[in-house]
Amino acid sequence: MKLATLRDGSLDGRLLVVSNDLQRAVQAGAIAPSLIHALQHWDECEAALRRLSDVLNDGRCGEAQPFDPKACAAPLPRAPQWLDGSAFLNHGRLMEQAFNTPPIPHFDTVPVMYQGASDDFLGPQDDVPLPSEADGIDFEGEFGVVCGPVPMAVSPEAALRCVRLVVQINDWSLRALGPHEMKTGFGFLQAKPSTAFAPVAVTPDELGAAWRDGRVQMRLHLQWNGERFGEPHGGEMNFSFGQLVAHAARTRRLAAGSIVGSGTVSNVSRGAGSACIAERRVIEKIDQGEIRTAFMRFGDRVRMQARFDDGRDGPFGVIDQRVVSAS
Amino acid sequence: MKLATLRDGSLDGRLLVVSNDLQRAVQAGAIAPSLIHALQHWDECEAALRRLSDVLNDGRCGEAQPFDPKACAAPLPRAPQWLDGSAFLNHGRLMEQAFNTPPIPHFDTVPVMYQGASDDFLGPQDDVPLPSEADGIDFEGEFGVVCGPVPMAVSPEAALRCVRLVVQINDWSLRALGPHEMKTGFGFLQAKPSTAFAPVAVTPDELGAAWRDGRVQMRLHLQWNGERFGEPHGGEMNFSFGQLVAHAARTRRLAAGSIVGSGTVSNVSRGAGSACIAERRVIEKIDQGEIRTAFMRFGDRVRMQARFDDGRDGPFGVIDQRVVSAS
Repeated sequence: MKLATLRDGSLDGRLLVVSNDLQRAVQAGAIAPSLIHALQHWDECEAALRRLSDVLNDGRCGEAQPFDPKACAAPLPRAPQWLDGSAFLNHGRLMEQAFNTPPIPHFDTVPVMYQGASDDFLGPQDDVPLPSEADGIDFEGEFGVVCGPVPMAVSPEAALRCVRLVVQINDWSLRALGPHEMKTGFGFLQAKPSTAFAPVAVTPDELGAAWRDGRVQMRLHLQWNGERFGEPHGGEMNFSFGQLVAHAARTRRLAAGSIVGSGTVSNVSRGAGSACIAERRVIEKIDQGEIRTAFMRFGDRVRMQARFDDGRDGPFGVIDQRVVSAS
Repeated sequence: MKLATLRDGSLDGRLLVVSNDLQRAVQAGAIAPSLIHALQHWDECEAALRRLSDVLNDGRCGEAQPFDPKACAAPLPRAPQWLDGSAFLNHGRLMEQAFNTPPIPHFDTVPVMYQGASDDFLGPQDDVPLPSEADGIDFEGEFGVVCGPVPMAVSPEAALRCVRLVVQINDWSLRALGPHEMKTGFGFLQAKPSTAFAPVAVTPDELGAAWRDGRVQMRLHLQWNGERFGEPHGGEMNFSFGQLVAHAARTRRLAAGSIVGSGTVSNVSRGAGSACIAERRVIEKIDQGEIRTAFMRFGDRVRMQARFDDGRDGPFGVIDQRVVSAS
């Protein structure tokens, strides 16, 4: 089942069911007004939403309209929590070199994760207003999961069963502000402006064999201003989403609709490229002796799209955003 | 104006207007169903809520009921964001010694702040279910502000004008988990279970001269299992709430209802006691050579109440909570 959210001026937007080919969509308001409502009442809504999805995909839905990703907000325009891991250790180790920060203790065995703001997510084609190019504007391509209610102190296995939807994320980052916030020990805050999402959130069954071991086994293809930037594979994630969700819920429950991210997708193989500029820069420094790539300028665009291993487009749609001056 | 939230099984609860003496309350549903609704529509709701408050305080409100803090949730049972500073530098410096962490750079000039979970706050008399006494269970007495919408990159002066309400907070903490999370640089997550609030949120005018320089000029009186623990004064805050809110909004806007906390109230004078156990422990270590006080056990209670400098009870009501095993 593929779900999206039509922007309608409200804080939660309006729930859409999207066809398999992402060409058509139908409003699901008779079942649930919004995606957050559906997640809060999943047991009552899921079957009816799946029936509507079947009718839509069979071409029998008279109310279907063309699906317009530009009219979409993030699948959840706001969420109870947004927790982002750093589950690709290759990325984390490179970033330690980039930021010149001390090694994170137990990095191989205990997930690291920051609490992000979850009140103001960006849609897939929304402009990204930011105050200054001097802040080191960067994208981060990620995968994530949207949970049902998660009890406190859940096991990784039970946590994985709490996953309702899989999403594709652009975790905007300001690299000039990150190292100081890491050194405070209090974590990222100014370094993490509003996060953006691809338009379509999907139930794990939509991924077929690409949802395996609690990981999204797909490549995330990135372009910066129309040029190829990388296509790292999500299967190399060192912690599963079950482990990440369990980590997040160790001492507190998570409300339905909480989102847990993988952190920047990153592969050991240099050939895969990167999913953020900061990682490319540190690779340049290591491999070529100097940084050649600058961070983003106002007017720059980034595009992200997941693809299955057989080359088919992924089910999440496309993130395609432009950075603009907030002033 | 004094506002509270009656627990009614919904996620946002039901808005109450509370009398000046905290003895009576009236449901404000005809004006705004919930406090978050009132904050999202403040310009339309404020005057009507103030009129209802006047009628209640004049004894002319036929629908008034006794005010029962035990039936109250946190004023906002969930909020768009919860951002907690560490604006009492005395506390921060002591905690560096307690945790043996390196000095935070620019600590005197740039506020530090962590992003907390805001989906599941505790009410003033709610039990606090936690997984293990071994996690180092601690309270933290604080003040905080609830904001209207805050634009990105706002000045401290303009940020202070975004403050709608003042609140009293118990920021539950798990001290065995904090140092590791600080060392990751990603900030507190497992170390910060659900935060609790005193029942009554007040407009700044309710504080009179005790709302000055963007600070709450009141003592916060704490008792642990019925014994005096401390009564540090909020006026010693090294950054104002205007500075804290501006720091939080440097690279992103904050949705109406976002909460910004002061961090643990702490005074340089040892005579004031402390607002958390961790601070008392490090003072014991420094002044007496050894730690004498253990963290909380299941069944322990903590009580917090602000008082005006002339000795009158503060307007927020009382936090009185018991720690219990989650299992």
